[in-house]
Amino acid sequence: MALSKSPYRGPRDFFPKEMRLRNYIFQKMAQVSETFAYEPYDGPLLEEVELYLAKSGEELITDQIYSFIDRGDRKVAIRPEMTPTVARMVAQIHREVAKPLRWYAIPNLMRYEKPQKGRLREFWQYNADIFGAAEYGEVEIIQLAVSIMKSFGATQDHFEILLNDRRLVDFVFVKLISLESEANKKLYKLVDRKNKMDPAKFSAEVRLITTEERQAQIFEEYVSITTVKELEGFVKKHLNLAEKIDFLLDEPASAHHEAISLSIKPLFDLFKRLEHLGLSSFVKFDPSIVRGLDYYTGVVFEIFDKHPENRRAIAGGGAYANLLQIFNELPLGGVGFGMGEVPLKDFLEAHKLMPDFTKPDFDVLVAYTHLSSEPSGFQIADALRSLGLKTEVIFGESKPKKVYGQTEKKNYHTVILLNENEVQVKHLKSQVSTSYQLNEAFKIAHEVKGQL
Amino acid sequence: MALSKSPYRGPRDFFPKEMRLRNYIFQKMAQVSETFAYEPYDGPLLEEVELYLAKSGEELITDQIYSFIDRGDRKVAIRPEMTPTVARMVAQIHREVAKPLRWYAIPNLMRYEKPQKGRLREFWQYNADIFGAAEYGEVEIIQLAVSIMKSFGATQDHFEILLNDRRLVDFVFVKLISLESEANKKLYKLVDRKNKMDPAKFSAEVRLITTEERQAQIFEEYVSITTVKELEGFVKKHLNLAEKIDFLLDEPASAHHEAISLSIKPLFDLFKRLEHLGLSSFVKFDPSIVRGLDYYTGVVFEIFDKHPENRRAIAGGGAYANLLQIFNELPLGGVGFGMGEVPLKDFLEAHKLMPDFTKPDFDVLVAYTHLSSEPSGFQIADALRSLGLKTEVIFGESKPKKVYGQTEKKNYHTVILLNENEVQVKHLKSQVSTSYQLNEAFKIAHEVKGQL
Repeated sequence: MALSKSPYRGPRDFFPKEMRLRNYIFQKMAQVSETFAYEPYDGPLLEEVELYLAKSGEELITDQIYSFIDRGDRKVAIRPEMTPTVARMVAQIHREVAKPLRWYAIPNLMRYEKPQKGRLREFWQYNADIFGAAEYGEVEIIQLAVSIMKSFGATQDHFEILLNDRRLVDFVFVKLISLESEANKKLYKLVDRKNKMDPAKFSAEVRLITTEERQAQIFEEYVSITTVKELEGFVKKHLNLAEKIDFLLDEPASAHHEAISLSIKPLFDLFKRLEHLGLSSFVKFDPSIVRGLDYYTGVVFEIFDKHPENRRAIAGGGAYANLLQIFNELPLGGVGFGMGEVPLKDFLEAHKLMPDFTKPDFDVLVAYTHLSSEPSGFQIADALRSLGLKTEVIFGESKPKKVYGQTEKKNYHTVILLNENEVQVKHLKSQVSTSYQLNEAFKIAHEVKGQL
Repeated sequence: MALSKSPYRGPRDFFPKEMRLRNYIFQKMAQVSETFAYEPYDGPLLEEVELYLAKSGEELITDQIYSFIDRGDRKVAIRPEMTPTVARMVAQIHREVAKPLRWYAIPNLMRYEKPQKGRLREFWQYNADIFGAAEYGEVEIIQLAVSIMKSFGATQDHFEILLNDRRLVDFVFVKLISLESEANKKLYKLVDRKNKMDPAKFSAEVRLITTEERQAQIFEEYVSITTVKELEGFVKKHLNLAEKIDFLLDEPASAHHEAISLSIKPLFDLFKRLEHLGLSSFVKFDPSIVRGLDYYTGVVFEIFDKHPENRRAIAGGGAYANLLQIFNELPLGGVGFGMGEVPLKDFLEAHKLMPDFTKPDFDVLVAYTHLSSEPSGFQIADALRSLGLKTEVIFGESKPKKVYGQTEKKNYHTVILLNENEVQVKHLKSQVSTSYQLNEAFKIAHEVKGQL
């Protein structure tokens, strides 16, 4: 029986046109990261399962991980996310290096999920993290995220960054609603699903978790907030502190004030800084953003597609305080985000921001009509390549008509055709031809390069 | 108990300095490949084990593969090599596309080997293949291999390409020595190990495989050949055809001649073509090069390090006629080669050809002495980044002395320091400083870029 020509279920084959697209995306991500002085890193494809057990969300481990026992009897997994790896690596070196550390990577990851729009089992995910930058980390990471999106031609018409803060969420759930830890967790999960649910069903589910109607009402009031201004009003009202609190006070007057200051002020400060950077039009407070993973402790955010038919998250991230704890290291705060190539590609296509990668961008096509000119043809190709020009040679004797017939399949700039006695160099756009001697490889190469 | 900070045994952590080195290597490989009009592709990280069983060498499957049963009960493996994948992909599309197909990839692969110099369990391997180019494929692939090596600054003093041809080997083993298929296989393995063996032991082992002394002698004579000229003499002598054969005849006069022509002539032709391309100083006939993998059917070669303390293969490849057969497709000949980043890195380091990647190549460091100038500092950084300059911002108020103290850790080109009233732009090499207004971000960015 013949073998299947299809790829294994889940991963993809990247034929050249898909690969050019992937390279385009990765190169933009890398370029923008480097302009922010982020340094590249990578980790192992496999990690011991223990590492993920300590830090990843439960669903990831029990349902989605590709794990197995290796020949050395170790339980390992193909990486389903990059954060545990980067934490492990930073734990190795953070004592010796200057802070902040700015790192980015574009690893391939695998998760056993039902393949669907925006989700595939093997995918690449851009990851950027800044460690040890205190409150500035959040601003810079969001700035970086916006810059990456802009590098693809996206504007505030195409996407928005939805922001929240875990400290604020905990303040509302624990202090204002007074929920127990179990109910708190359930409410977290419910918030996460809010935008995919029918409002009546949502209301009903809230009341299955809360014990008093008052709690349900505060919660519903919270999730309907749409601006920072409204958030301010909401908090003031429920604390019955109306006129007494100024959230922008730098020195809170009481312990009560201090709690508020620690849990709410950072988000207000962040919005202020983003305003100074001219990024207000990109960001929006959203009470339903909580991020599923356990390790976030501060600001959390998602980049959301504004396209009415593609209302989905393209990327997500947040701040974490204790990633190094599992390695018995001192706390080192960080902020990071991840952006998958699959949702990004869908986003760029939905908004018609994706260039056409169907044809390769070659520069020159070299062919010869007589075998006797083959060595000269090869020399010319060699000279062109040494100048960095993408040069394709047609092997064996060619008919001129066939050579020109081929120029439409790939985006050549110039065709070089050798006959027995001379070299015809044709610039395709201008349709201007120039003749050269067979032995003028160097001259030809420089003149062709000059026309690029 | 705290988790281990070390990576899983086998794979590596790539901290920024190792990652910069890896990126340097991959970028050169990709750039040179594109100048030869090779197109990028990639395949899945996992393939069904069946695919490797059909085409890879036995050792790879039984001893070295990372395989497991997935959640869908399929037996899969992390790719240990790329050739089966590329064959599978080409089988999908070769009927519809123009030939030749030129493809390259730089996948991560895994093999469960004992980690040692030049070998690691997780590694990246450059792969280039040309399909459907008849005899020209071999020349171009070797030319490409030489160009990649040269792009790293390597010359014929550093490396050589050792060449042989499976058709020639079969001609010698089967026609001249008259070996049975089992003995033939054993001789193949022995040849492969020749350079690592004591000559007396080698002689003894030859005689364990052959049945007549005459056979052993022809074999030993064969493996001692060092040039194409000697090879020609060897074949002529054993065929007792001395003056009668001209290997360069295009039309052989008899069936005997035809057999010789098919099995030996291609290698002579290849050496001729390589001479025309000026590559003679890079290539050398070597009877011990046979390549372990089953799929090679024509020319085989290895790029060998000439460094006396690092006499090892950096890359290897060859021609294959029947890769698509396992998919029930018509034969489509191809030539390809693979080059691992680990042996290449060792090679470049042994010859001191590796640039220093210890420090990141950042362009500009921006800092401010007073918080009031922070917005201006951020604007300047923004303007620099929009021009593609790698710009690091020091957050919070800085002391000038500390800022300049930091410039030695990274290769900055310019330091920009804002105080309350103005901006000092210092070009580090010339030590020239220029003053600007706080609101001249755009002007500053353009002038700094102009000095690069």
